[in-house]
Amino acid sequence: MSAVWNGAGRRISICDVGLRDGLQMEARFVPTEDKIALVHALSAAGLRKIEVTSFTSPNAIPALRDAEVVMRNIERHPGVTYTALVPNARGAERAIESRVDELNLVMSVSGTHNLANLRMTSMQSFAALSQVVAMAQGAGVPVNVSLSCVFGCPMEGDVALSTVCDWVRRFADLGVRRITLCDTTGMAYPTQVAQVSAAALARWPDAAFTLHFHNTRGMGLANVLAAIDAGASRFDASLGGLGGCPYAPGASGNVSTEDLVHALELMGYDTGIDLPALLAAAHRLPEVIGHDLPSQLAKAGPRLALHPAPADLDALRERALARSAV
Amino acid sequence: MSAVWNGAGRRISICDVGLRDGLQMEARFVPTEDKIALVHALSAAGLRKIEVTSFTSPNAIPALRDAEVVMRNIERHPGVTYTALVPNARGAERAIESRVDELNLVMSVSGTHNLANLRMTSMQSFAALSQVVAMAQGAGVPVNVSLSCVFGCPMEGDVALSTVCDWVRRFADLGVRRITLCDTTGMAYPTQVAQVSAAALARWPDAAFTLHFHNTRGMGLANVLAAIDAGASRFDASLGGLGGCPYAPGASGNVSTEDLVHALELMGYDTGIDLPALLAAAHRLPEVIGHDLPSQLAKAGPRLALHPAPADLDALRERALARSAV
Repeated sequence: MSAVWNGAGRRISICDVGLRDGLQMEARFVPTEDKIALVHALSAAGLRKIEVTSFTSPNAIPALRDAEVVMRNIERHPGVTYTALVPNARGAERAIESRVDELNLVMSVSGTHNLANLRMTSMQSFAALSQVVAMAQGAGVPVNVSLSCVFGCPMEGDVALSTVCDWVRRFADLGVRRITLCDTTGMAYPTQVAQVSAAALARWPDAAFTLHFHNTRGMGLANVLAAIDAGASRFDASLGGLGGCPYAPGASGNVSTEDLVHALELMGYDTGIDLPALLAAAHRLPEVIGHDLPSQLAKAGPRLALHPAPADLDALRERALARSAV
Repeated sequence: MSAVWNGAGRRISICDVGLRDGLQMEARFVPTEDKIALVHALSAAGLRKIEVTSFTSPNAIPALRDAEVVMRNIERHPGVTYTALVPNARGAERAIESRVDELNLVMSVSGTHNLANLRMTSMQSFAALSQVVAMAQGAGVPVNVSLSCVFGCPMEGDVALSTVCDWVRRFADLGVRRITLCDTTGMAYPTQVAQVSAAALARWPDAAFTLHFHNTRGMGLANVLAAIDAGASRFDASLGGLGGCPYAPGASGNVSTEDLVHALELMGYDTGIDLPALLAAAHRLPEVIGHDLPSQLAKAGPRLALHPAPADLDALRERALARSAV
């Protein structure tokens, strides 16, 4: 049997991306103070990396139009990396001014998806992001590159592993050492995840790869475990399972942070995260967001949160035994 | 890496239990003809085992008060085992008269759960079921025993593996060769599943063990994979993820048959099930039941059910390239 079923204290690092990947899809504007409170709750629960916001045009994503205010007013916990998504040089300037700890750049390994979402060809995106990488390096701010549609494009279908590796290589050649392989619309499955993760980790042993899964088709946790078995140890997730996919209305969003922490800790992995504190934050989330969330754990509670036995259990037993005696 | 990530054509057998484990919880009575149509749809989709109903007292579970009518009117597909739950000797008589292919008996390995649910001590249940086993053996009808709370009791907490093995042994000693290990309220986690499955399979190599998981805490698929890695190959699931748990309102029910088939077939396992036919049945289910279901796949579709690219993709590309040329 695989060693993956027994964590044996191995460290798994989780980055909560709900404030960015989740909130960017929400119709209702979440008040700035609620966002700040959420970042604080996540920091206090032990998250060591939080994607706080996105420095996009306020017209493109009005839900995150308060990026600067949020970034400047969060309480910075020591040891926590506060990262933000940055689509272009203008966003990078704003993010660097707001003292983000890391710039998270994004482009898609699917040409169709890149064009449809970012209005640029993949090569144009790469050229633009190369400038941002240089800016960040000049400013001494670390860069993470998130590659979308690594496990499939909802319009093109499967993307060849060689294409994925080509894009990783281009960024690695620029000196980027942090790469997130994103399952943008929940198309990843464990066999593929194991293969892609193993290939990337073997080819770039010095890079820090993060895996980003959505639970769109119910395979989120299985994909995380396949990636761990292939050597990965960094994952994105979102409180409450915030997020979602425009191609699958009603389906789950990102892998839920609390579901993932609960499962991994039971399995003997060390996430460094305080589950009760995380759950308390998850329980407040539906009111903040204005709707129910896909998190299973927020509904069911941890597996050993026991329920009282029937008050008349002794009487039940006596009656049962009396029937037998007849 | 584990071989579990690559099915390599290995056969996995799935029994759909939605008509029993799912419908028994529904407030609304599902018309008899709809139940019969569902059994037919599952047979036609390639399920090789279907739990059709429960021969319980009509007062205890009015939702299944039509057990005889359903059982007598389903179309029997060759090679399909039509099983039914049977709580006691009276139920066994009714089930045998209705020509079930298998009697599925049930008791809990948790004394508290058994008393609260079945109003008997575990020893009383065992004594009663022993008589039913003898009846079935006399009638030449195979018996399956489903043990509840194998992976934890919502009132008692964890149940010792030795206790679980004790109950398996008692039934094995009666000649029962089909045993289902049930995660009745979704408390199982992969480490435990791997351990319990491996122990049971090693100790009773001639028995046919089925694993029955609920997705209450989002670990259903991961638990199935852990069990497969430990050597198991038979699983319960329910169309649409029907079912649920009285201790976790709003949480998921049984592992969804279509989510499981989709994942396992992608991984190279052979379930023998026709996913499009199964999905068609799943899509009709919410209307039959009267509410939404937890199945992810019914909402999101298979991973390669692609979406059209934007109609103006060529124009987008031209405009993008024109901007670069400026």
